[in-house]
Order: sequence, then C-alpha cells, then structure tokens
Amino acid sequence: MKGKTKRYILPEDEIPHKWYNIQADMTVKPMPPLNPQTREPMTASDLYTIFARECCDQELNTTDPWIPIPDEVREMYKYYRSTPLVRAYGLEKALGTSAHIYFKNESVSPMGSHKLNSAIPQAYYCKKEGVKNITTETGAGQWGASLAYAASLFGLEAAVYQVKISYEQKPYRRSIMQTFGAQVTPSPSMSTRAGKNILTVNPNCQGSLGTAISEAVELARTTPDCKYALGSVLSHVSLHQTVIGLEAEKQMEMAGEYPDVVIACFGGGSNFGGISFPFMRHKIAAEPGKTHTRFVAAEPASCPKLTKGKFCYDFGDEAGYTPLLPMYSLGHKFHPSNIHAGGLRYHGAGVIVSQLLKDGLMEAVDIQQVESFQAGCLFARAEGIIPAPESCHAIAATIREVKKLKPDEEKVILFNLSGHGLVDMASYDKYLSGDLINYTVSDDEIQANIAKL
Amino acid sequence: MKGKTKRYILPEDEIPHKWYNIQADMTVKPMPPLNPQTREPMTASDLYTIFARECCDQELNTTDPWIPIPDEVREMYKYYRSTPLVRAYGLEKALGTSAHIYFKNESVSPMGSHKLNSAIPQAYYCKKEGVKNITTETGAGQWGASLAYAASLFGLEAAVYQVKISYEQKPYRRSIMQTFGAQVTPSPSMSTRAGKNILTVNPNCQGSLGTAISEAVELARTTPDCKYALGSVLSHVSLHQTVIGLEAEKQMEMAGEYPDVVIACFGGGSNFGGISFPFMRHKIAAEPGKTHTRFVAAEPASCPKLTKGKFCYDFGDEAGYTPLLPMYSLGHKFHPSNIHAGGLRYHGAGVIVSQLLKDGLMEAVDIQQVESFQAGCLFARAEGIIPAPESCHAIAATIREVKKLKPDEEKVILFNLSGHGLVDMASYDKYLSGDLINYTVSDDEIQANIAKL
Repeated sequence: MKGKTKRYILPEDEIPHKWYNIQADMTVKPMPPLNPQTREPMTASDLYTIFARECCDQELNTTDPWIPIPDEVREMYKYYRSTPLVRAYGLEKALGTSAHIYFKNESVSPMGSHKLNSAIPQAYYCKKEGVKNITTETGAGQWGASLAYAASLFGLEAAVYQVKISYEQKPYRRSIMQTFGAQVTPSPSMSTRAGKNILTVNPNCQGSLGTAISEAVELARTTPDCKYALGSVLSHVSLHQTVIGLEAEKQMEMAGEYPDVVIACFGGGSNFGGISFPFMRHKIAAEPGKTHTRFVAAEPASCPKLTKGKFCYDFGDEAGYTPLLPMYSLGHKFHPSNIHAGGLRYHGAGVIVSQLLKDGLMEAVDIQQVESFQAGCLFARAEGIIPAPESCHAIAATIREVKKLKPDEEKVILFNLSGHGLVDMASYDKYLSGDLINYTVSDDEIQANIAKL
Repeated sequence: MKGKTKRYILPEDEIPHKWYNIQADMTVKPMPPLNPQTREPMTASDLYTIFARECCDQELNTTDPWIPIPDEVREMYKYYRSTPLVRAYGLEKALGTSAHIYFKNESVSPMGSHKLNSAIPQAYYCKKEGVKNITTETGAGQWGASLAYAASLFGLEAAVYQVKISYEQKPYRRSIMQTFGAQVTPSPSMSTRAGKNILTVNPNCQGSLGTAISEAVELARTTPDCKYALGSVLSHVSLHQTVIGLEAEKQMEMAGEYPDVVIACFGGGSNFGGISFPFMRHKIAAEPGKTHTRFVAAEPASCPKLTKGKFCYDFGDEAGYTPLLPMYSLGHKFHPSNIHAGGLRYHGAGVIVSQLLKDGLMEAVDIQQVESFQAGCLFARAEGIIPAPESCHAIAATIREVKKLKPDEEKVILFNLSGHGLVDMASYDKYLSGDLINYTVSDDEIQANIAKL
C-alpha cells in the first residue's frame, strides 16, 4: 500500500458545470405525474404553486441530457466540492479481498451528507424567483440541516417539519438547523390539518416522512410567498445529485479504473441516482467495456419498496396532497418501523429509479438493521470514518458483493458514502450495547397495504 | 467572488515528509523538564517509562530542525490530508471587511479535529517498540476519539480517562471512542489512587484535564506493557501538529499570499504551535517580508494562563506525577470553570509556547464564552461549518483583529479551524436559548493559586 494514492480530488475548475439528466437518454421514459382529482398528466406549470419553477421544469424535462449548473450554485459547491474519491485500502485489508473498493466521500460536506448538493440549487431557484420562505420535511435531519444552511446562504426563512421520533432521538440535528436560523417543528404537529387529523386518531404518533411531507406541502400551499423543497424522490433532486457521479467518473479515470459494481443506500433514490446515473449513461449508450456494470440499491429490510413493493401510481405523502407518481411503493399509508436510518424510512421510490428497476437496468437488495451496523463498525475501524446509519446499508451491500467473489478476483466496486454518523452516535451506542434489533415487515402486511393501491 | 478559488488542496505527494522542530531554531531554548524529587534536569531516557521512546527523544531534541515523518504515519495522514486551506469569502462579506481571511480546515479529519495528527504517530511509535496498551486522558473527547482510532489502526488496546463532566455532557464522543474499541472511564474514578484521593475529599468532583492526566499516567506506570500519550502541551505533540502549518504555507503560496496575522485557539498549545511554528521560523530567521507577522493565541477568559498566569516550573497534572515543566501556569491545583470548550480547560501552557511568549515572539488574548459562541454562529452561517467551541475562540480573535482594521485595509489573516462542533450541539443549544453564561476568574483566585508555585 505504501506510496499508493489513497484519495483523488479534482481541482475546482473540474467541478461539473452541468448536471446529467438521465431522463433524456432513457429508452422508456418515466410516466408523468397525474392530477389526483382528474388523473390527467400534469405539466411543469401545474407544479409551480408548490415548487420553484426551475425545479418543476427540470422535473419533467425528458429531452435535454445536460442541464447547466448556475454560477451562483457552483460557487457554493466550491465550499466543499469536489469531495474525495477514496480507495478503501483499509476495508479491503479487513475483508481480505483482491477487489478494489472505492468510495465517494460525501460525508465531508459541512452538513455531513450529500443532501447539500440539492439544497443549494433548490434554495437558489426560490431566491431567484423572489420567494422569501421555504419549507420542507426531514427525517434524521440531514436534509433539514442542509436546507436550513442553504436557506441562510440565500437569505430565505426556512421552516422544517421533522419526524417526531427523530426530533426527540436526534436533538443535535435539530440544534444544527436552529443554528442556521430555521424554525423546526416536530411532525405530526397541530399546526396543519394533516397533522391534526393524525394526532386526533393517534395522539402518540411518532411521525413518518410521508406525514411530514404532507405538513410541509400544506404550509407551502397556505402561506403566501412560500415554496416547498423535497430532499429526495423527485427527479430534479436526483438530477442535482449527479454531481456525485460526474465527479466520481473523472476521479475513477485518475485511478485508471472503471467500476464493475456501483452501490448506494436507498431511501427515495437521490444519492443512489446521484452516483449511478452518470455511469449508467454509458450502459444505456452500449459503450464498449461499460455495459457490464451493475447498479445495486441497498434498502432496509423493514421498508422494502424496491424488493417487495408494487409498481403503480401512488401519493408521495401520507395525506395525499402530492401528485400521483408512478413508483414502486408499499402504499402511502405504510408506516415503517423505527429503524435508526431515518433517511430510509419512506414508502416509495423515485420515479426514475422505479422505471429503471422495472426495465432491468439496476438491482436492489434489502439489509437488516443489525447487519448494517456490523458493516458500519467494520468500516469505521478500517477507514476511520463513522458512517451514517443510512450509509451503513451501502457498506453492507458492498461486503455482500465482496463475499460473492473468489479470493483473487479483482472486481472494482464503487459505493457512495452518503454521510457520516457523528450525530447518530446514540444509534451506535445501542448497537454496541447489544440492544439493537432487526425489524421485519411481514408479507401479509405488505400485501394488505399494496392491495389498497 | 465568482470564479475565484475558494479552497486550496495539495496533491498527496506534497503532504509534508518532515515535521518542523522549532526548538532547533529558537534563540532562547526552552528550559528542561525537572525531576520533581531532585529538581535535576531530566533526559529523554528518564521519560522512557511513561512515553514512547521516539516521543521522548523528540521532546528534548533542540538541535534538528526537521524530523522525518515515518512512512507508516504519512500513509495514514493520506486518509484525510492535505486538509483544505479555505478563503473565507462568506465571513469577509459578513464582516464587511477588505481583509483576506483564510482558515485551515482541520475539521475534515475523520475524527473532526486536528488531534489525529499526533495520535497517529504516538500510536505508531508505541506499536513500533512493541507496546500493546496505550492510555490517555481526554476532555471534550476530540483527543480521546483520535487516539482510540489511531490505536485501532495499529492494533493497540486503548484506555481513556474522560473528564467526568464531558463524559456526561458529551455522550456522543464517548460512543465514538467505544466504536473504535476503546475502554472509556469517567475521571475522577475509583480505579486509581489519584482518582480515589480526589473523590474521598469531594465525591461530586466533575473532574479536570489535570486529574484525568494523573489517572492515565498512574495506569501507564502500574500496567505492564503500557505507555501514556498526551494530546497537547508537550513539545513532541506540537512537533507532529506542524503538518498543519507546513501545508498551510504551501497553500498560501498557491493563493499568492503570506499571513500578516496567524491565529489559533489555545488549550495546551498544540494546534497553535501546529499552525504557527512553520511561519514563525521565517520570523526567527529574519527573512525579508516575513518578520512582521503576528502570532495570536486565543484562550478562554476563565482559564487565562497566557494572559494572567505565572512563568515558572509546575506540574502538568493535578496529582503531581509528571515532571516539572517550565510554563505559564495558573497552578496545577487550579480548577477551571465548566466552559463548553472542554479542550481549553487546562491550567498550563506548553513549554515551547511559554518560552516564545516570554521572549515576545507571540501574543495572547482572552475570550469570554458568550463572545466565542457569537463568533461561532456568525462563522457557521457565513461558511456553513459549525465550529468546535474551542475553535470559536480563534474565530472571535479573528473578528477582533478585523475590527481593528480600517474598512479598506487589506491585511491577510490566517486562523486554524481546529475542529467542527457537530458533536457539541448541546452547547450551541444553550447559547441559542440564551442560557450560556460567562465565567470570570478573579485576580484574587489567580494570585492565591500562583502564590503556591
């Protein structure tokens, strides 16, 4: 290992100038969102009341493969990009493998995760069209913290609905949002009709991403001069995240390698899409030597929409405020177990990823909670970085890939380290003390939820 | 600001190959440590029973200005170095200044602070001489986490005494240490004579760094095959930290600038020495254009050893186990107030820094707790990084420097961002809710302590 390069970093002028829009290259385009009342396809302008206009246009753009990154956004990317591509020599040694394992380290972002990549443009586009308030939901708080920071960068007021269980279990992330001046409300709350309806039925409801989205969308609809921003699931969010994969591609070139497998954890699909889509474009274009690459999404066993969900039109939120989206779903009323990977507790998969999975361009695996933390601790001791509980799923999937290889097989594996776990140590505490349990969702429960769709 | 470089990062082959030993260049050399029984100067070999031998040799080396960094250590530095030098455009704008403000971002280290720079070589030297156990103290936990990680890298068992108030207030850092397999004990504890003596008199004692050092040193002395490692104060620790300043010097060259002022927070002196000494060598050598640079240490007002302490021989720990060291001290029995910057709660200053301050080569300022958090929040909103409570002192001192300038004065200020505060959010919570208070230590209390020296 001595003398070999460990980290690959791009000079600032090689930070991408454009995002990659895979929708333009897909053979089968994603189906459009539908108006829930009329079930008619929605256009970008139908979405303008909720999201920043530029985001709506990007959401439904199926023709332009490259979308310019505004200068103002790219300047803010310079605060932490490029993120390093790291050769995981330590992990390779710990696993005793001949595989070459690389990870893209998005945890070096000031907010500790990849989420900032989309928070910055979403806040920027709001600012650009003169909006003064921005609202969103957050689970573990990675997205909320990123949006709170991005809002403060562009002088916007931010209101964040945080899933109640995370609000209580992860007070540090709430404080981070407050440090940036955001107003944080535990969800479900009495401040919205969606929240009230749930609390009336179940006063002890611990919340879910689906419910928090309903509350934020309701706030955006009922507040003048206020737009809603989403941290994953939607196509424009994955678009912004392609900076990850575009950088990784150049950095893999510096290392003289091309990945055989690309792996990321899966909540709504934004970090997965971010690292995968730039490599997948070569597969779609059938470029020689680049068609064999496999793309693996690692989801929690307790929220298995990709491996056990149904492909259909469903709502993005619990209350049914959003358009109907074509996706793999467990049903928008599905309440995931209280796993520590709060960012993966979502009932549906993004529109693009759902289509790609349906068309066989990618795969999915489900990971139990204990296996994910085992993998996370192994990685921490080998590479010195404590991964976020979400990212532990990608590491566990990487270890599974390695275990499938023969000892001398030199496969190249790339995974996305979407964030660090320094603010999630209470979860590690629980794992280290042996108190962490697996959650399994029964086929009957899944079928009961899916049958309603 | 558009298009200007924000971050300067060195290629891996420019990570320093040598540390800079300022002792070799100092006109007035530091006085030697004394045996407390005989008051005779101690030699390196007198220290071998406590510390790794290489560290003892480095501690008293006043002849070689450059000490080679072992290949094994430099390979581990590659896990996170070089750290970025960042032009703080956001902070400049927030302050409305023409000054050019740069910071060296040591918070990107996987453990979140500069401490790893010395933890790695100290663990390596122990491993190299066949030692199997390593023990240390920690305050807020930045050092303990770093040593726990470094120990795991080299296969050593680590035992950490953590100051009790931090053990209770900052459980996340304890969990980080445990994730790396370290045994963590709150100090004072009943496991050592030093701890027992204190708990007998005061069962509710909240601990201090001085006490935790006594416990760790006692463990090292009474345990076979066990060495002690210290996170600051000693000269070999500052030596290892010079990677910070050596990198910063090359990075400032990339930016085409040279600092007029260099600033760091001050606990024992290692991050201050780390960023300062490489620049100070040009001042000592009277190089043209490099003699005017000022070096400013920012200490907490509640623990003002540099601004109000006495230069004398004193113990490094509460129980009086260590050699007598020539330093600015508030007395080894001084118990600092419970400020949130746990890493700055230490009664004495490192030997080298004490001599440099005495000889007028540097300055010191004291910062109140509330001012430090004000500065930290301003910086967070401007640059997106939440600084450690310790680092907030350096930012506050930077802001004071800026306020001394005329609006169009283009001074170049460099400070060290020693760590991030993501694991210290409970402290920010307290500040944001208005519950944070200042602590002042009266001149009478200082005089009473100093009179005993």
